[in-house]
Amino acid sequence: MTAGKIICAGLGPGDPDLMSLRSYRAIQGARHVAYFRKAGRKGQARTLVADLLPAGVVEHAMEYPVTTEIPFSDPEYNRLLSEFYDQWAETLAEMAQTEEVVVLCEGDPFLYGSFMHLYTRLQGRCPVEVIPGITGMSGCWTASGQPITWGDDVLTVAMATLSEDELARRAADTDALVVMKIGRNLPKLRRALERAGRSEDAWLIERGTMPGETVQRLSEISGPVPYFSIVLIHGQGRRP
Amino acid sequence: MTAGKIICAGLGPGDPDLMSLRSYRAIQGARHVAYFRKAGRKGQARTLVADLLPAGVVEHAMEYPVTTEIPFSDPEYNRLLSEFYDQWAETLAEMAQTEEVVVLCEGDPFLYGSFMHLYTRLQGRCPVEVIPGITGMSGCWTASGQPITWGDDVLTVAMATLSEDELARRAADTDALVVMKIGRNLPKLRRALERAGRSEDAWLIERGTMPGETVQRLSEISGPVPYFSIVLIHGQGRRP
Repeated sequence: MTAGKIICAGLGPGDPDLMSLRSYRAIQGARHVAYFRKAGRKGQARTLVADLLPAGVVEHAMEYPVTTEIPFSDPEYNRLLSEFYDQWAETLAEMAQTEEVVVLCEGDPFLYGSFMHLYTRLQGRCPVEVIPGITGMSGCWTASGQPITWGDDVLTVAMATLSEDELARRAADTDALVVMKIGRNLPKLRRALERAGRSEDAWLIERGTMPGETVQRLSEISGPVPYFSIVLIHGQGRRP
Repeated sequence: MTAGKIICAGLGPGDPDLMSLRSYRAIQGARHVAYFRKAGRKGQARTLVADLLPAGVVEHAMEYPVTTEIPFSDPEYNRLLSEFYDQWAETLAEMAQTEEVVVLCEGDPFLYGSFMHLYTRLQGRCPVEVIPGITGMSGCWTASGQPITWGDDVLTVAMATLSEDELARRAADTDALVVMKIGRNLPKLRRALERAGRSEDAWLIERGTMPGETVQRLSEISGPVPYFSIVLIHGQGRRP
């Protein structure tokens, strides 16, 4: 039996006040925290909790061996990441024999989160608790000042890494749409939304709920946007 | 200029500890709270905050004139609800001249929430602040112990009030699926998932994150289920 455990604390969309009470307490009581980050960066998760970490907490930065330098489709990408998750699962499982470790995860851990790759590897090795969070997309549609879905609207959530054809098909066949992982996929996404006749209804939100938040019509944007910005099309369903 | 405002506090999926710090503080500092409920019931939103309301708070129960007694398609349903929202928007706008009123909303207010019908009516009449919440579906997929989406998975969120054909088509054309508003729509949804070849992958979650929570394979369920239960099919996307 282990005496410790792993707690994955969903941090929500960015504003620390939008964290759940449970995540907040877990972080304030932490002796060990771990978080993902790109090598050479502070890490967004770590930045969000900068004012919350207790004195003396031990930090474990889990640095991705690769992010966007190699395409997903390259077998090397998969091999490097798989090894990375294997090693950190091993380290965390060992720590959980005696310690509680809080893993910080932006947004909601089970919705396209990196923690899931540790979660599956930790099954049967130590107790793992997951605290959900307000999703980044929810922070963005709240920032947009318009409800995302009404009545019987269908909501589709898709990644801009999909093909242009697939994005166009999805955009044409839904009431409300959320597209994540934008960055360099923006020109492709823009063409797909135009083909679907929906580009005029699309909004781009950057840094939703955080300092520097912007909410703009997609048609008004030129130039590059961050990978973690979000494109939204609001549903127009039944409204008495 | 008004001196007060309306604050819509998203309550999250049910467990009060999963509320955001901002909603928690708004509720604890409230002088007036309002919440929807079915006539003759306590109201789920009110029940969730039972231990948080400050002494002396003034409560405003907004009782739906109709819930499931008349079908959505009946013009009378729409007329009654429209009048109900008009009247409460009027009342809240008046109160907001001098007071801050916290409106309690389960889940995330902008995702299929009732507050949206007040929100649109209050535009230009008084300041309205919306605090997002962890969605009910997020509480359910966390309760299921399995991530809902991986890699490039497409997630579709649909209401069980849609037709069987539409539900079957949606279920066949997505990686991950969330279906809400189950209740009496369960037999139709079950047939739709069977036609899509996905009934064996479906889970039904009742009272996610709350006392009495259940997580069961849909195929193991017989008998009626609540309207607010949720059906999930987890995505199986890329996982290094």
